[in-house]
Amino acid sequence: MFVARTSTKLPLSKQTAAQLSKVVASFSHTYGVTANTPGLHLSGLHTRPAQSHRQFSSTSRTRLREYFPEPENDLIKKTDAAWPHPPYNVEQMRNKIYYAHREPKDFSDRIALFMVRLLRFGMDTATRYKHDVSSPKKIGDSNAVTETNPYHMSERKWLVRMVFLESVAGVPGMVAGMLRHLHSLRRMKRDNGWIETLLEEAYNERMHLLTFLKMAEPGWFMRLMILGAQGVFFNSMFLSYLVSPRTCHRFVGYLEEEAVLTYTLAIQDIEEGKLPLWSDPNFRVPDLAVNYWKMPEGSRTMRDLLLYIRADEAKHREVNHTLSNLKQNEDPNPFVSEYKNEGKPHPSKGIENIRPTGWEREEVI
Amino acid sequence: MFVARTSTKLPLSKQTAAQLSKVVASFSHTYGVTANTPGLHLSGLHTRPAQSHRQFSSTSRTRLREYFPEPENDLIKKTDAAWPHPPYNVEQMRNKIYYAHREPKDFSDRIALFMVRLLRFGMDTATRYKHDVSSPKKIGDSNAVTETNPYHMSERKWLVRMVFLESVAGVPGMVAGMLRHLHSLRRMKRDNGWIETLLEEAYNERMHLLTFLKMAEPGWFMRLMILGAQGVFFNSMFLSYLVSPRTCHRFVGYLEEEAVLTYTLAIQDIEEGKLPLWSDPNFRVPDLAVNYWKMPEGSRTMRDLLLYIRADEAKHREVNHTLSNLKQNEDPNPFVSEYKNEGKPHPSKGIENIRPTGWEREEVI
Ligand SMILES: [Fe+2]
Ligand SMILES: [Fe+2]
Ligand SMILES: [Fe+2]
Ligand SMILES: [Fe+2]
Repeated sequence: MFVARTSTKLPLSKQTAAQLSKVVASFSHTYGVTANTPGLHLSGLHTRPAQSHRQFSSTSRTRLREYFPEPENDLIKKTDAAWPHPPYNVEQMRNKIYYAHREPKDFSDRIALFMVRLLRFGMDTATRYKHDVSSPKKIGDSNAVTETNPYHMSERKWLVRMVFLESVAGVPGMVAGMLRHLHSLRRMKRDNGWIETLLEEAYNERMHLLTFLKMAEPGWFMRLMILGAQGVFFNSMFLSYLVSPRTCHRFVGYLEEEAVLTYTLAIQDIEEGKLPLWSDPNFRVPDLAVNYWKMPEGSRTMRDLLLYIRADEAKHREVNHTLSNLKQNEDPNPFVSEYKNEGKPHPSKGIENIRPTGWEREEVI
Repeated sequence: MFVARTSTKLPLSKQTAAQLSKVVASFSHTYGVTANTPGLHLSGLHTRPAQSHRQFSSTSRTRLREYFPEPENDLIKKTDAAWPHPPYNVEQMRNKIYYAHREPKDFSDRIALFMVRLLRFGMDTATRYKHDVSSPKKIGDSNAVTETNPYHMSERKWLVRMVFLESVAGVPGMVAGMLRHLHSLRRMKRDNGWIETLLEEAYNERMHLLTFLKMAEPGWFMRLMILGAQGVFFNSMFLSYLVSPRTCHRFVGYLEEEAVLTYTLAIQDIEEGKLPLWSDPNFRVPDLAVNYWKMPEGSRTMRDLLLYIRADEAKHREVNHTLSNLKQNEDPNPFVSEYKNEGKPHPSKGIENIRPTGWEREEVI
């Protein structure tokens, strides 16, 4: 496991810890309010540890200063998410979603995997992130990753990481969907259903981002990083997708393996009581998330939210590994197709038949 | 009306007619079959007038050579359109959809209108198209345009025009949706529901294109034109949308005014019996169109199909004129919002409350 390797190579020294806290501090944002400003409950990240317990409290939504409130409007009641999320069964999210790794099979796969490892290494080094995983199990239980010796991640550090990652995660689906759309128009060929799934993936990632932003307002340093990252990533994906869409889908498949791992570790941190703000019985997930995932009453903790998001990432992993196995210009999208034998398990929009490492072409075409 | 003006300036001479037939001929594609090849019913464009009556016959779908057949597949039965089309009422499509023109109100509007007129003039000149409209009425009947003295358009010429226009029509929605998506990710702001409507518009235009391609296979010259047009148009839209999204939406609104006019004229040609291949009782619209628009049994003529497509264009006209009236970064998308007073007519996905020239900001926000 390269995650383990990374952490071995970069033992946490006092010095790096100091650097880290400097980086984290510059991510944050001061509101110009003091800890005793009455009635002002912040949902954002900020630099005062003393406020840590208040920032996630949300006894009254109206009193909570939101980063991007529903626009006030005399006529419009609300504007819902236009593309409904497929329903996920809570039991299945716990049992069917776990870390898994697809072995690369050819040169294109190996390039994709190498790129993901390189990016992850760069990202972990830049943010001094380290989550020492000795042996992630690949079998199906929700505590898929067992022995961990983590560099302590606070709620804020998790949010910083998640906001950054989700802000780039929305790029590849949009690039792929757009290029396939333009290709279909100019080559005058049917697309066979790929575009919608890819655009919906991008949309889903943006919903992840907006959800986290409801809990954390990023500072100028992070904004700058995100601007730069999007510029570089968008253009690289654009060019790469023109050269080899197959490799790009594999690349996203591997990226999503990392995403599943990351969220598994975050869920585990919560379950082990390491993130008290998120285990607080008063903690409420944002309404935006409740509405989007249709989270059932009584299952609206931060842990539940991360289970939904992790399941989404596992779905992207399955979709992209599968698409990479197909003929890019001919094969229909197996996730939106009707099957001749509906009795046999087949790819679908939900997670009931999810395949962590994707479907092989022979299984679906 | 600039359409009328254009046709006055460019009287049809024998010479231009000869040039036109040369252009049309080069659009076409020879299959290497003779008129008496038994049992081969072509759905494509070709150069032999003698075959004109056969090319659209479709007594047996299996015998019809399709331009892009459903992929043959042992396991998958079919791959449906992933984004369902909102149901359109046939009565409403006839009565509520008609040509209309929004008067430009400021400099940005005038630039948008000028660009559309310029493009239309260029396009009409290049293809020697002319449809002399003396006085399009703006009131609500389906024969909105009455007195016409058209340069004769055959079924093939209509298809060539429609295929070309639809292949560029799918660009602006995709560009706008993509740029708003990237903007939301990197500025970490909610989008308020615009993206999905814009992407679905692009998708809807692509379905128009695919529908026409089921009836006409374009030749190399047209393919080349489409390649070039997409390259120029995509990049212009990309840059323009970064500079002024408001002007771009107005531009699309004006483009769609032209689209509604074009389809109104085509419908009128059919109603006046000028396009016998499309009035033929044996003519069947492609299955793709029947499924996508859920065309009711008994209303599946070419005229019905064009009514659906014209209603789509009128919808894009309404949406883009409205979006152009709004604050681009703040206002929610009125077409996917829930209203406080649901009794009052308000923007929606269907055509029951369609406003030909869009909704003003005060009416919806
Ligand atoms: Fe995500
Ligand atoms: Fe993802
Ligand atoms: Fe269209
Ligand atoms: Fe249109």
